[in-house]
Amino acid sequence: MQGKNMLVVSAHAADFVWRAGGTIAAYIRGGADVHVIVLSFGVRGESNDLWKQEGQSAENVERIRTEEASEAARILGLENVEYWDFEDYPMNITRERMDRLTVRIREIRPDIVITHDRRDAFNPDHEKVSQLVSQSCVMANSAGVMLNGLQATRQMSIFGFEPHQTEISDFKPGTIIDITETFEVKRQAMECFKAQKHLIEYYSMRARMRGNHAARISGNKEYRYAECFANFFPTVGRKFV
Amino acid sequence: MQGKNMLVVSAHAADFVWRAGGTIAAYIRGGADVHVIVLSFGVRGESNDLWKQEGQSAENVERIRTEEASEAARILGLENVEYWDFEDYPMNITRERMDRLTVRIREIRPDIVITHDRRDAFNPDHEKVSQLVSQSCVMANSAGVMLNGLQATRQMSIFGFEPHQTEISDFKPGTIIDITETFEVKRQAMECFKAQKHLIEYYSMRARMRGNHAARISGNKEYRYAECFANFFPTVGRKFV
Amino acid sequence: MQGKNMLVVSAHAADFVWRAGGTIAAYIRGGADVHVIVLSFGVRGESNDLWKQEGQSAENVERIRTEEASEAARILGLENVEYWDFEDYPMNITRERMDRLTVRIREIRPDIVITHDRRDAFNPDHEKVSQLVSQSCVMANSAGVMLNGLQATRQMSIFGFEPHQTEISDFKPGTIIDITETFEVKRQAMECFKAQKHLIEYYSMRARMRGNHAARISGNKEYRYAECFANFFPTVGRKFV
Amino acid sequence: MQGKNMLVVSAHAADFVWRAGGTIAAYIRGGADVHVIVLSFGVRGESNDLWKQEGQSAENVERIRTEEASEAARILGLENVEYWDFEDYPMNITRERMDRLTVRIREIRPDIVITHDRRDAFNPDHEKVSQLVSQSCVMANSAGVMLNGLQATRQMSIFGFEPHQTEISDFKPGTIIDITETFEVKRQAMECFKAQKHLIEYYSMRARMRGNHAARISGNKEYRYAECFANFFPTVGRKFV
Amino acid sequence: MQGKNMLVVSAHAADFVWRAGGTIAAYIRGGADVHVIVLSFGVRGESNDLWKQEGQSAENVERIRTEEASEAARILGLENVEYWDFEDYPMNITRERMDRLTVRIREIRPDIVITHDRRDAFNPDHEKVSQLVSQSCVMANSAGVMLNGLQATRQMSIFGFEPHQTEISDFKPGTIIDITETFEVKRQAMECFKAQKHLIEYYSMRARMRGNHAARISGNKEYRYAECFANFFPTVGRKFV
Amino acid sequence: MQGKNMLVVSAHAADFVWRAGGTIAAYIRGGADVHVIVLSFGVRGESNDLWKQEGQSAENVERIRTEEASEAARILGLENVEYWDFEDYPMNITRERMDRLTVRIREIRPDIVITHDRRDAFNPDHEKVSQLVSQSCVMANSAGVMLNGLQATRQMSIFGFEPHQTEISDFKPGTIIDITETFEVKRQAMECFKAQKHLIEYYSMRARMRGNHAARISGNKEYRYAECFANFFPTVGRKFV
Repeated sequence: MQGKNMLVVSAHAADFVWRAGGTIAAYIRGGADVHVIVLSFGVRGESNDLWKQEGQSAENVERIRTEEASEAARILGLENVEYWDFEDYPMNITRERMDRLTVRIREIRPDIVITHDRRDAFNPDHEKVSQLVSQSCVMANSAGVMLNGLQATRQMSIFGFEPHQTEISDFKPGTIIDITETFEVKRQAMECFKAQKHLIEYYSMRARMRGNHAARISGNKEYRYAECFANFFPTVGRKFV
Repeated sequence: MQGKNMLVVSAHAADFVWRAGGTIAAYIRGGADVHVIVLSFGVRGESNDLWKQEGQSAENVERIRTEEASEAARILGLENVEYWDFEDYPMNITRERMDRLTVRIREIRPDIVITHDRRDAFNPDHEKVSQLVSQSCVMANSAGVMLNGLQATRQMSIFGFEPHQTEISDFKPGTIIDITETFEVKRQAMECFKAQKHLIEYYSMRARMRGNHAARISGNKEYRYAECFANFFPTVGRKFV
Repeated sequence: MQGKNMLVVSAHAADFVWRAGGTIAAYIRGGADVHVIVLSFGVRGESNDLWKQEGQSAENVERIRTEEASEAARILGLENVEYWDFEDYPMNITRERMDRLTVRIREIRPDIVITHDRRDAFNPDHEKVSQLVSQSCVMANSAGVMLNGLQATRQMSIFGFEPHQTEISDFKPGTIIDITETFEVKRQAMECFKAQKHLIEYYSMRARMRGNHAARISGNKEYRYAECFANFFPTVGRKFV
Repeated sequence: MQGKNMLVVSAHAADFVWRAGGTIAAYIRGGADVHVIVLSFGVRGESNDLWKQEGQSAENVERIRTEEASEAARILGLENVEYWDFEDYPMNITRERMDRLTVRIREIRPDIVITHDRRDAFNPDHEKVSQLVSQSCVMANSAGVMLNGLQATRQMSIFGFEPHQTEISDFKPGTIIDITETFEVKRQAMECFKAQKHLIEYYSMRARMRGNHAARISGNKEYRYAECFANFFPTVGRKFV
Repeated sequence: MQGKNMLVVSAHAADFVWRAGGTIAAYIRGGADVHVIVLSFGVRGESNDLWKQEGQSAENVERIRTEEASEAARILGLENVEYWDFEDYPMNITRERMDRLTVRIREIRPDIVITHDRRDAFNPDHEKVSQLVSQSCVMANSAGVMLNGLQATRQMSIFGFEPHQTEISDFKPGTIIDITETFEVKRQAMECFKAQKHLIEYYSMRARMRGNHAARISGNKEYRYAECFANFFPTVGRKFV
Repeated sequence: MQGKNMLVVSAHAADFVWRAGGTIAAYIRGGADVHVIVLSFGVRGESNDLWKQEGQSAENVERIRTEEASEAARILGLENVEYWDFEDYPMNITRERMDRLTVRIREIRPDIVITHDRRDAFNPDHEKVSQLVSQSCVMANSAGVMLNGLQATRQMSIFGFEPHQTEISDFKPGTIIDITETFEVKRQAMECFKAQKHLIEYYSMRARMRGNHAARISGNKEYRYAECFANFFPTVGRKFV
């Protein structure tokens, strides 16, 4: 993974941890440059448990979410995390935000982009971010889109996070990444989100379940924990994987 | 590709050439062991132009098809081709044939199996062969299926050939293999099938078209010719391709 | 149905009658609280026959549509109908409208929401309303979305109306509701829309056709008229239905 | 559930436990008559771990599988389990077997039938059993199919088991049954299959994961463990579930 | 339609009337040669009401069905109807039957073939007939399939009947044929099947519903009754229809 | 085609040539009135090769693209081409643009509309134009949408262009139009776009490939070049095509 640039675009503060934390940690260990853009803190939509506290305020929720996400990022080994602080629920996609992301894609120049998959039956924000990232990648790759004098990028691979309920979101597994070696780190990162114990349990189970699938599909019993992604495009290369 | 075992199961005499000839040649050059099983000569269903000759006989068609397929195989560099000589149109899948293929899978022990994809809007033989191969792989992998004392195989990857008309056959590109370096060899192999000039033109164009797709998806302009396959299962590994 | 709260969101003035009139009447008879929100009068898009009259005006069409819809609602037994008077064709979904609907969902606190299904091959307004309702339900359910001090709602069931041409709109029947006992009321309600005779005939036939399906699927010959809905989510419970 | 007749048709000895054990136990507790037909012991295809033992024989595997399945059935509270002892991998569907199942359906007269869903990407036996059960239900319901003087049945509801890897098998959740109260019993039943520890862990996780989905979809936090099924037909009734 | 040859293959005695009676009558009036092959009388599967009579026998049901089908065919104007008298429920597809149909296709040499569509959620016989006809057309078109010295046919158009419940059978409307002028004849033909009053009502309503769709899609208000078919292949021609 | 009005809506300057140039030329020769609306020059998104020139400017790119498109249109025989000069990448769909297109549809009064299909995996502009055209057709057809006193149109047929990579864009061939007689004209028109040599080769191959499909599906060997379109709605008529 040495020499690879990966960009992860996360709708809310914890999405990159639940859905790709083990892969991020594995890429960092493997020598890749990994950048994460967190579009919102999920103050309105993904902090239900924090809002149960008497007298809770948006400022306090945002403070807690920032601390938790930063600590989780640190545990995963991330050095490049940006918080764009958009309002969530609903997430609003504007031309200005599209250009801003296009600029960052051209600056980061990723080989691999990971973000939300096209459909999420329970989360319209995720669907909008998926569209935003697709659109911005297309623009970044196009020489005629002039932005700050930045050079157009080369077509990148794009992969979609697994949504919470996969089948009703038409999620189709395209690539399963073994995270056996980084699962412990992912678990620690997940535990930063103290108000979401049930999701820690949930995504630990999914990692184990996808590990089972990885072993079954490959015949490689060493795969024990994994993360699953949709392929936006076919795989291209000189041989089968 | 060194050390890899590939098994290609072809319904009719020329399918492995039209649909995977470049990939086969690339794997052979790369040091893989490639085995091809040709289930039928396609005497009834895939020799329409030969039957236009006055006084044509099944024996003669079979003789011609065997010579053509053997010569094409030789050009691709294949040393292991078996002709099972089933009747085609329709192809009949029996328990005995299923066991026979299961035995061969256990003997060959392929890492990669390539055969027809599940649907082919114009060719029920192709659909039946797809089922036959799927079923036989499942049996070969299962320790309780006892056949000639052969040891069960490990789960192999399975890929589906591109059918003649893809969209109406629900074909979804999963992996596109660059065959720029072996396309010339593939073209020579295709030219062995003298009565099917229109297919030589057709599959030359498709190789170029898939090369265009490969370059577009990967940003790698060196890809000029390619073959496209469906993935029966998700890709599994330690990193993205 | 006693104690149940149902909210029906209708893009145009008559949609709730054609598509769910029998179910609404049945729920009202069964003791449920049923609220209907009519987003537009359909002055531009769903009043073609009225516009055939010489010298017709938007004001007059709106007046007629309001009277017709109100009378139909009265016949169904509805006491809670709101007319939001949006322009239709196209229907414009804004943040303010999203918040307004979210507020009403929190005030009404529905167990069941019925609205347009995701696709309608002939009616982009219906698709936009489907998205609006989905988005607003997600927001209403989220504790961090603060609106007028209203408490977040609990996840509600959501069902999609049958569109005019089902198969080309990818409509999948999820729940078929028997309306044998309320069909006569539905027919009377439909007859309020005097300029749309052909739709009265059409939705009478569909009710009979869905009644046939209900009887066939259940083996219960007492089902003679029915309305069909898509399930936005799987059914959850302690036993099969 | 009092007065309900449920028939579960299981391709191999343990399928009914992994995939529907909690639901079966819940129906038995609720007073339903539950019948299970186990078509094969899974000697060839679903006993890989048993075959790892030196000197293993088909007879011994069958004996162990029978004992395990019987003990699991006893724990679930089942009194009606039949073992038809078909060979598996492949499972062969004959006219005689179709008639035999049709006869049993007419004798048992189920309201609810549960069996394998239409697709299973890794298990052709499951697909064949799904077809067998569908076909036999259609025949059982048809007055003109004369078998032993048995009266035709009334259309039953049919539900499909969740396959091992759902998304690549096109599994669509239709009904999620809460098994919080019977999950402990299911776990004990699963533990009878001593050679399949990894599946016990796997299906325990899936039950918890489906419990999470059930709670999320319904807003009912009491749902902690669940089993998920495909609906062969739409739900029909006088009200929404 | 002058000069066109149409072949309709009907699984049971009345299918060609319910599903294509108006189209058949229109083609006959238009000067086409229309041949109908009725594979079974539907004695076991499609005569439920006849079997309600005390002391009913298979012979008597077959006699009634033959008379009804013959009279319906006569009313539609059909001169070429063959009854192959296969057993139904289940319908058994053998090699011999495949060859027999292939021979007839070569003798009849149809431009247009109409038969059951690929899926029918309630009727496995229909699915098998769809496969049989597809397979036999492929064989008939192939020069190397030698049967009685008959010349291979040219690729024909194939269209699929609308099944009873369309959406759950994945039926996609491809072509809607106006039958306004022949609907009265179709109704009379349907009325021959005296024991199936509910189907006469059902298919009268569907004809009217499809007429509504035809008028809506085309803007041609003269279309009042129609029959709908799936397209097995894309439409090909020198202009759009 | 005499008396037919065709409207082609093209997202960028060359789309109407690559995707429908042969069909346009054939309709013009056949006596139809063909209007083309080019929404943008594709300065930002579809002129990558032009931007490779040192010192290139948007003005110059636009000038070149206008000249190329005008010359191509002239070669195809087009007399009615409008350039709306929207910015591309991203294309912005506003209410004002929707009304503008609706007005033009009412003025042109097309029988046939051709535009981009719903999905394009690599081109969000194409998807937005598809929605714009669908929405504007619905509005144009609706009597209550009052615009400049123009009379509502009658429902038109709508067909979707083939996208660059069809299978991953869920493109389903609905109609294949033979362009054997106009292919040479199309090739000349394509050659106007000097900076896009690879697309000339690509769309020449696709025309030949679709010609092969047209011949295969119809049995008519005279079809050598063709263009393929998606059908937005089923075909309606008095006979099969």
